[in-house]
Amino acid sequence: MTDKEIIFRPIGYVHVDVEKVPRHWTLSDVVGELIIEPKYQEGLKDIKEGDRIIVLFHFHKSPPFDLKYLKQKPSHLNRVMGVFSICSPIRPNPIGLSVLEVLEVNGNKLKVRGIDMYNGTPIIDIKPFVVPGASENSPRK
Amino acid sequence: MTDKEIIFRPIGYVHVDVEKVPRHWTLSDVVGELIIEPKYQEGLKDIKEGDRIIVLFHFHKSPPFDLKYLKQKPSHLNRVMGVFSICSPIRPNPIGLSVLEVLEVNGNKLKVRGIDMYNGTPIIDIKPFVVPGASENSPRK
Repeated sequence: MTDKEIIFRPIGYVHVDVEKVPRHWTLSDVVGELIIEPKYQEGLKDIKEGDRIIVLFHFHKSPPFDLKYLKQKPSHLNRVMGVFSICSPIRPNPIGLSVLEVLEVNGNKLKVRGIDMYNGTPIIDIKPFVVPGASENSPRK
Repeated sequence: MTDKEIIFRPIGYVHVDVEKVPRHWTLSDVVGELIIEPKYQEGLKDIKEGDRIIVLFHFHKSPPFDLKYLKQKPSHLNRVMGVFSICSPIRPNPIGLSVLEVLEVNGNKLKVRGIDMYNGTPIIDIKPFVVPGASENSPRK
């Protein structure tokens, strides 16, 4: 069953110019751009300055997964943890999630703050940041 | 550039037995199970009853994406919105995100509440639900 392949294609790429990438978006003030394929630009029309967005991306520099990585010691913790409880880039499917703040929308480019991805990181999806009851666009009735 | 393929494989499947799936996890009290491949079970070791987890999954029943879906009218709203500002299952990469509550951990099976996926939905990843400052396991220093 798990041999079934799920194939995605980048909708765009991260552009960032820093020497060191913060470990996690909650620790990052790094500003950069999400450059989305022009053909998808219309899908960005309701993203506005000040929005928080969820960005799903490909950990494209991670080594191939090996079962020995099911337990890992995060660099900031003193214990070994299960991979599904941590944000390590080394995971069965190397997909990352960051919550970023939109500073500016410029056509197919989103200027964002909070980047914890490398320059050139492939972007898989952008979603609204929904916390129950916290957003006026919340889907809760 | 966007022709580059990113290939994932399911780490498990959703098991749920309801007639109608709620539109969104924020509206759902549906209980079901995430059945993870036994080979990945060790990676679940730190997931505990009461945890909230982020589940990334494949919208495996969505039709192929077409650019006409860049703008869509969500069923609960009276306006047409850009796909990257809504949670529609029809999106360039059909990947879904739900925040679920763990009710019970049983080996490779997680009993969860809040399901808005169909029975048989392929699971791509499980991550801790991190909101800045809100979790004691938060990676913020």
